[in-house]
Amino acid sequence: MGIRIFVTGGTFDKEYNELTGQPFFKDSHLPEMLQLGRSRVPVDIRTLMMIDSLEMTAMDRELIARHCLDADEQQIVITHGTDTMAETAAVLARMVPGKTIVITGAMVPYKFGSSDGLFNLGSAIAFVQTLPEGVYVAMNGRCFRAGHVRKNKLTGEFEEL
Amino acid sequence: MGIRIFVTGGTFDKEYNELTGQPFFKDSHLPEMLQLGRSRVPVDIRTLMMIDSLEMTAMDRELIARHCLDADEQQIVITHGTDTMAETAAVLARMVPGKTIVITGAMVPYKFGSSDGLFNLGSAIAFVQTLPEGVYVAMNGRCFRAGHVRKNKLTGEFEEL
Amino acid sequence: MGIRIFVTGGTFDKEYNELTGQPFFKDSHLPEMLQLGRSRVPVDIRTLMMIDSLEMTAMDRELIARHCLDADEQQIVITHGTDTMAETAAVLARMVPGKTIVITGAMVPYKFGSSDGLFNLGSAIAFVQTLPEGVYVAMNGRCFRAGHVRKNKLTGEFEEL
Amino acid sequence: MGIRIFVTGGTFDKEYNELTGQPFFKDSHLPEMLQLGRSRVPVDIRTLMMIDSLEMTAMDRELIARHCLDADEQQIVITHGTDTMAETAAVLARMVPGKTIVITGAMVPYKFGSSDGLFNLGSAIAFVQTLPEGVYVAMNGRCFRAGHVRKNKLTGEFEEL
Repeated sequence: MGIRIFVTGGTFDKEYNELTGQPFFKDSHLPEMLQLGRSRVPVDIRTLMMIDSLEMTAMDRELIARHCLDADEQQIVITHGTDTMAETAAVLARMVPGKTIVITGAMVPYKFGSSDGLFNLGSAIAFVQTLPEGVYVAMNGRCFRAGHVRKNKLTGEFEEL
Repeated sequence: MGIRIFVTGGTFDKEYNELTGQPFFKDSHLPEMLQLGRSRVPVDIRTLMMIDSLEMTAMDRELIARHCLDADEQQIVITHGTDTMAETAAVLARMVPGKTIVITGAMVPYKFGSSDGLFNLGSAIAFVQTLPEGVYVAMNGRCFRAGHVRKNKLTGEFEEL
Repeated sequence: MGIRIFVTGGTFDKEYNELTGQPFFKDSHLPEMLQLGRSRVPVDIRTLMMIDSLEMTAMDRELIARHCLDADEQQIVITHGTDTMAETAAVLARMVPGKTIVITGAMVPYKFGSSDGLFNLGSAIAFVQTLPEGVYVAMNGRCFRAGHVRKNKLTGEFEEL
Repeated sequence: MGIRIFVTGGTFDKEYNELTGQPFFKDSHLPEMLQLGRSRVPVDIRTLMMIDSLEMTAMDRELIARHCLDADEQQIVITHGTDTMAETAAVLARMVPGKTIVITGAMVPYKFGSSDGLFNLGSAIAFVQTLPEGVYVAMNGRCFRAGHVRKNKLTGEFEEL
């Protein structure tokens, strides 16, 4: 059946605006990244929103949950800003039973050279195919259960609660 | 306990010789790649050999198997040239019971820009933490059981046997 | 005698802060860029300041001018933010006679992948070795005389006045 | 009038063949590189051949010379393999009077990440606009007159004869 991928924005997909010198969103780089990774896993990519996760509202999270529930696929990967990734995971864990959902992201935009995005995407694609039902955060090569993870704001790393 | 990583060479670690215009081996890029991926999984990296997998002999494979058996870790990732990856997997499946071993590699050297290496490494690190005992090949975002995989020489992709 | 290079900051040398998601200054990438370009021109690199050129004051420009006057070298390259590059060029043209000074910069940070910085640096190093005395801006593969150039804020390109 | 650019191949334009593991030629990356450099110099790019310069024959060099003579432009940049760049320069110096011709190349393919190609191209574009009539080799940030340059096979660098 393949994997459903939902894009919600985050550092993952930020680009650099040459005129303002600020990061901004354009299109998702997911297709390009999967091609670079020579991925042959069947995927269906949908962009739900393109926002900084600090700006994500309860309504946004409900929308994501609804799309997870409606998806035909059993395995779902969500790309997401790292700042509130743990929060969205907790919401999805309550609202979406019976599926394997892996949320991932990046500390550095894919387009800015030395990004962790490709590594994280590879791990998320692997985790979603092998983990039992549940909602997870995949960062730093590790996998955390929803409700048991937080981002350390000082180091930028994810750690178990 | 963490993951043991064995480096055996392959396209993964090739560099470009400016003077001859030919790819060659120097040091492994594994530490640099794990750092780029902000990986926080405890790993212990050992370089067993640095060769093109077309030149890998039965003795080389026995050496790899012995190191897998001797390792304290239960989870082992092996970076390997793609050409004979499936063959090594079959050998390890016979010789190393009771561990989870994931072999991965790359079609394009990490140092040559657009490489699939970082994506594959991310997936291998994830697969090895979640799959049951056995020997696997992780390429193209997918995971194949030893003995049930081959590299398609025309497309460069791995497919199920 | 070689070329004196003065670093003043600008987009050229910005990096990405993973924790805040904002560009910031650390060290200059000039030595790394010259190494990447396999440059063998004798250079002496000095960092005078590390600022966004929108924040450059009259006093900053005077400081740059004084360093240009004091330098033993006849040929000087200055890396500079693009926003007020033309203004600094005009100041130096009044204050520093008898030398060849080429100011250059970048629209995208060197560290953010697809940067014009390496191309611009190559052109600046070439222009400074071949142009007669005077102050110039080297951007977009072209060379403009101080006082006869401006940055088009809409396109980000430099054009002749 | 702008600059005429002739592409002849060389390391500059080599790509990596994933299936054979060998470098090979496809299309020229010149347009992409000039775009990356935000170059706004009017150029007319023509691919004359796509070969390793070790395989370049006297007839090939005559062909290049004829194209230089026939070009409307006064300023010509030629991308060329580094191994026989000096030899081609000497031939052009004899056969093409009255123009400014700058030959450049790269030690590492543009597509292989850390390439000197973009730096060299920037310098060549600058040198050709500022140097008097004659034939030159632009490498390592420097410019050498035809007949007074050779590639040091041990270091890969160009030096004055």
